Amino acid sequence: MLKACIAGATGYTGLELIRLLLQHPDIEIAHITADANKGKRMSEVCPSMEGIFDRELVELTPDLARDCDVMFLALPHTAAMDKVPAFLEAGCKVVDLSADFRLRDPNVFEEWYKTPHVSPQWIEEAVYGLPELHREKIKIARLVANPGCYPTGAILALAPLMQCGWVDLDSLIADCKSGVSGAGRKLNASTQFCEANEGVSAYGLTTHRHTPEIEQELGALAGRPLRVVFAPHLMPMTRGILSTVYANLSEEVTPDQVQERYREFYRDEPFVRVLPAGKFADTRQVVRSNFCHIGIAHDSRTKRLIVTSAIDNLLKGASSQAVQNCNLMFDFPETRGLESAPVFP
Amino acid sequence: MLKACIAGATGYTGLELIRLLLQHPDIEIAHITADANKGKRMSEVCPSMEGIFDRELVELTPDLARDCDVMFLALPHTAAMDKVPAFLEAGCKVVDLSADFRLRDPNVFEEWYKTPHVSPQWIEEAVYGLPELHREKIKIARLVANPGCYPTGAILALAPLMQCGWVDLDSLIADCKSGVSGAGRKLNASTQFCEANEGVSAYGLTTHRHTPEIEQELGALAGRPLRVVFAPHLMPMTRGILSTVYANLSEEVTPDQVQERYREFYRDEPFVRVLPAGKFADTRQVVRSNFCHIGIAHDSRTKRLIVTSAIDNLLKGASSQAVQNCNLMFDFPETRGLESAPVFP
Amino acid sequence: MLKACIAGATGYTGLELIRLLLQHPDIEIAHITADANKGKRMSEVCPSMEGIFDRELVELTPDLARDCDVMFLALPHTAAMDKVPAFLEAGCKVVDLSADFRLRDPNVFEEWYKTPHVSPQWIEEAVYGLPELHREKIKIARLVANPGCYPTGAILALAPLMQCGWVDLDSLIADCKSGVSGAGRKLNASTQFCEANEGVSAYGLTTHRHTPEIEQELGALAGRPLRVVFAPHLMPMTRGILSTVYANLSEEVTPDQVQERYREFYRDEPFVRVLPAGKFADTRQVVRSNFCHIGIAHDSRTKRLIVTSAIDNLLKGASSQAVQNCNLMFDFPETRGLESAPVFP
Amino acid sequence: MLKACIAGATGYTGLELIRLLLQHPDIEIAHITADANKGKRMSEVCPSMEGIFDRELVELTPDLARDCDVMFLALPHTAAMDKVPAFLEAGCKVVDLSADFRLRDPNVFEEWYKTPHVSPQWIEEAVYGLPELHREKIKIARLVANPGCYPTGAILALAPLMQCGWVDLDSLIADCKSGVSGAGRKLNASTQFCEANEGVSAYGLTTHRHTPEIEQELGALAGRPLRVVFAPHLMPMTRGILSTVYANLSEEVTPDQVQERYREFYRDEPFVRVLPAGKFADTRQVVRSNFCHIGIAHDSRTKRLIVTSAIDNLLKGASSQAVQNCNLMFDFPETRGLESAPVFP
Repeated sequence: MLKACIAGATGYTGLELIRLLLQHPDIEIAHITADANKGKRMSEVCPSMEGIFDRELVELTPDLARDCDVMFLALPHTAAMDKVPAFLEAGCKVVDLSADFRLRDPNVFEEWYKTPHVSPQWIEEAVYGLPELHREKIKIARLVANPGCYPTGAILALAPLMQCGWVDLDSLIADCKSGVSGAGRKLNASTQFCEANEGVSAYGLTTHRHTPEIEQELGALAGRPLRVVFAPHLMPMTRGILSTVYANLSEEVTPDQVQERYREFYRDEPFVRVLPAGKFADTRQVVRSNFCHIGIAHDSRTKRLIVTSAIDNLLKGASSQAVQNCNLMFDFPETRGLESAPVFP
Repeated sequence: MLKACIAGATGYTGLELIRLLLQHPDIEIAHITADANKGKRMSEVCPSMEGIFDRELVELTPDLARDCDVMFLALPHTAAMDKVPAFLEAGCKVVDLSADFRLRDPNVFEEWYKTPHVSPQWIEEAVYGLPELHREKIKIARLVANPGCYPTGAILALAPLMQCGWVDLDSLIADCKSGVSGAGRKLNASTQFCEANEGVSAYGLTTHRHTPEIEQELGALAGRPLRVVFAPHLMPMTRGILSTVYANLSEEVTPDQVQERYREFYRDEPFVRVLPAGKFADTRQVVRSNFCHIGIAHDSRTKRLIVTSAIDNLLKGASSQAVQNCNLMFDFPETRGLESAPVFP
Repeated sequence: MLKACIAGATGYTGLELIRLLLQHPDIEIAHITADANKGKRMSEVCPSMEGIFDRELVELTPDLARDCDVMFLALPHTAAMDKVPAFLEAGCKVVDLSADFRLRDPNVFEEWYKTPHVSPQWIEEAVYGLPELHREKIKIARLVANPGCYPTGAILALAPLMQCGWVDLDSLIADCKSGVSGAGRKLNASTQFCEANEGVSAYGLTTHRHTPEIEQELGALAGRPLRVVFAPHLMPMTRGILSTVYANLSEEVTPDQVQERYREFYRDEPFVRVLPAGKFADTRQVVRSNFCHIGIAHDSRTKRLIVTSAIDNLLKGASSQAVQNCNLMFDFPETRGLESAPVFP
Repeated sequence: MLKACIAGATGYTGLELIRLLLQHPDIEIAHITADANKGKRMSEVCPSMEGIFDRELVELTPDLARDCDVMFLALPHTAAMDKVPAFLEAGCKVVDLSADFRLRDPNVFEEWYKTPHVSPQWIEEAVYGLPELHREKIKIARLVANPGCYPTGAILALAPLMQCGWVDLDSLIADCKSGVSGAGRKLNASTQFCEANEGVSAYGLTTHRHTPEIEQELGALAGRPLRVVFAPHLMPMTRGILSTVYANLSEEVTPDQVQERYREFYRDEPFVRVLPAGKFADTRQVVRSNFCHIGIAHDSRTKRLIVTSAIDNLLKGASSQAVQNCNLMFDFPETRGLESAPVFP
């Protein structure tokens, strides 16, 4: 049995990691950490774990890595980038769910996160953990930077178009709609129930930190730098991200060709489903699973493609993708522990 | 006192018309109709009216127009276009909340609504009831075609850009997010609670009937035909529409210039508010009122404008806009009966 | 024009007071206070007021009372009980929306609020502001203690039974279901969106501070002390309280007699509606209004009455009831400014 | 591998049965039926199953039982009671999720369901499928009547009190709050999103069909007939039932004794958790699992017990309880396929 440590176990992604690893046949949870709640038992902080998993929460220290094979870091951005080297040097592999090692260029990191990177020498070694794009590299990685929730949805929606020459790479727009759990569990005036319920708003226009991540990965696929308009919106719901992406068609292509391109691109992917023509993605059909649905509209009037993708922001957008990466890193079947169907309704 | 008839009084927009007219000092409700509920009293169908307004529901017939000054038609599309001429000929003015008289070209109507227009000779006389664009014509109109909910939000967001030459008129995208009440009160599998709650989906991509309406009005402002990508989405909330519209900047313009352009365009408008720079629209701040909020983001990285607008789909997107039009048609102060502030939370 | 000061203007009940007074023809708002936001303009804190009411927020000081006729105190419990005497002595009347002057016995206050009352000499003069029970006293009061949201709903549901001898006064249970806005606007882990959404929980069982308030008023009606089981529950919705109250029938009485008793008791009440037999209260039918709906079930199998009442917790349960009290205190028609119908959906 | 047929596979409980059996290591799904959708593939009706389980839906006929070991009937009440004998006679065991075989007295069935029972001779053999009460009988049953969702929550909350003599058995009240999925997937005006969202209402007071079921089981435990006030309420949420039950204490008993009584009663139960003293049940902590949480308040002021229980109405209240029963009937470990932790948030 692989031994795992979950750092930040009482946040929403930490809780999902616990739930997923409890049903994983090859991984056991060795430690759970939560600095603010250290010394408490899990069920005191999270009653859903009552009588199911009641380990004591400990503080995150470097020596936890010694008796673990893998560390899942479900911590706020910049909180752990100084600790990752010690974990790796102790022989532990790391799946970091924060943004700290996602951006290949430390200057871009500093520009968007407003703080210098403190372990830039490890960026080189980190692999961006989107299995659909980087499966082979993830298999041999020691440090995987688990993708952001928005980038997962937006990149999967656009990836098949990056190399076929059909769309204007300077026309990409991602209008993304996220459930409130994407904001995490910390106290926040704008995510109080009465402020977030029964309404929709845009936020972070032109400034959201997931922008460079989307651009890095799509640019790498396209073989040249590109810029994406990324517009996040907060939805009155707990989970799910719907990404609606727009691209100008730069040459004649039929709806069938596009549909076929997507089906081919994701043919062997265990967790991506291209919906039948005429169907669009709906977050309700994927939440509480690791699946991603993609639905395509081809607008011949305006010469645009509109691609919709749906994921669970806490799962394929965070915790279950982290387990998928871990499976690859330790040579388990990629779908191990992740086969559960979406839970509807 | 002006005498009004509300046709379709038990649907959501009909109910809002009743509520608004009850607080209008110059209009009294003479008749309310609902063919399926004729003979019932209002409170049997809608308990919120218990002890407040308990008129009997009658059938919609031409002679109702005889003792009314104005008919508000809150009926499904195509349900009343054959009756409108009789109402007008009886000397009654008409505010039609359906789509029947919104499109100036009967061929376009037939193309999108899949049925021929039966009263095409009256289209010419109809005025598109968006006061911010057509105030003077509305004042002298006998027949006002009250705008659709999505078009109201999308057009108000884009109108100030149509004549200034700053944006590429072929680049317009409207990604719109609507509450479920926009689908009306009829039984519908996709708007059952468990199907519409806690999730987001796109629908009607490339085919939604509000598309030609948006294009007609923006094209008229721009002085040339144009096409708009219109992508509606269903939100897990009862009311409100957020429109996020994207336009490519075709020349250098500063954020201040854009902000000033919008402020100037809507300077004298009683119901449109341009938010301070850096603020984006939020439907919670306008619902249950006739107000429209507009917030602008200027993305210099990608040379785009992102404009957000928020309205209440049942009010500024339907019933209160109908009352605003009626005020204009009968020379009442435009804001009469509509001054209520948004209700938050 | 009466001049009013609203203390605590940026909380949910403060915001509703502003909205209501803006549409009140006889009252103008002279001052708004919010210590934490003093110096800011209203629209900075609450965008819904953009271009509608943009007064500057000031600090609450005794001299504000000098140029006001009435103070509405929408502050946390115990925050203003030391200031009330100064306001009254300056000749200002006070409607206090907090619990500070609701309980007639300062020992009971201290027992439930865990702090001594600092102005006990004024309790005697305070009138419990439920117009349906204390209308005549409110008319001549200088200090009105506006009822709690739960007590308003529970008392209105049970009041008609207190003097008729039909029910066992020791059998009363109030199972109450409130929207989240009842918890106010302060930051709170349990009212973050993802913690309060999509679920139901009981809280404060046996300890909720509204218990003695319900017992005081029902006991006064009954003419003897009594105890009530009060069980509050948090609902995943913004507004509304449904109270389901249970009482053992102690003698034979027909459903018609009960229905008639309630109709008679509330016959002249402008804001209480007894629903037809067989109909139960639904918060959706009263929210965003000052109305209370009451629906009665008579269970002959178990010899119980089950009475349901519905109110808007922020309105009849707080702010609009405060305006109703103010109307009485200043001899305006009781319904002035409060006639708006509920807003459905 | 056990072969199962799921009848009514496209309703909410049918969908959950599919999801659960897909992760059950010892059961395979042989047939799925849905008369209205026969001939369609599962993913056409339910996109969440896209690429996961895409069997064709067939019509429910007696011969389906021939190559199955167990039939799960997730059909409307009275829809299958005439077919059950044929299934049993074909050698198939049956778990019936409808109410058809829950009531031991066919007269009581007819009184509450307004139709005669057509297979009364099989009632005797049916076992009420609440494992916490009838485990040994379920193990040897051919026909299990799976409990209703409300009864599961209410009975588990009250069962430990039925034999200890502490409470007045004529004082029981169950105020129950259910998510909308309890109403099933059929079209219904009152469960349209805008009618069910953002509000709370009582329904079915004195008449709800789950009443005799609760009374039958509690009466059997108590050893004498009893009546329960059962008051169901519709919550604006998709899943979960919170039951708040009230009982008069008829003798002196300490909170610790009650707590201990519950812990003892459920000590060996794999799916019932008695929360620590002072904690009350919250549906969010059990949804999407087979767990039941119970929290107890002891009100010495009023001499009442208030017991709260929380379950997922579609799982412990329907489909996962059906699988738990099936495990018992076929001698699998009782928790097989049901170990998943609740999914929070």
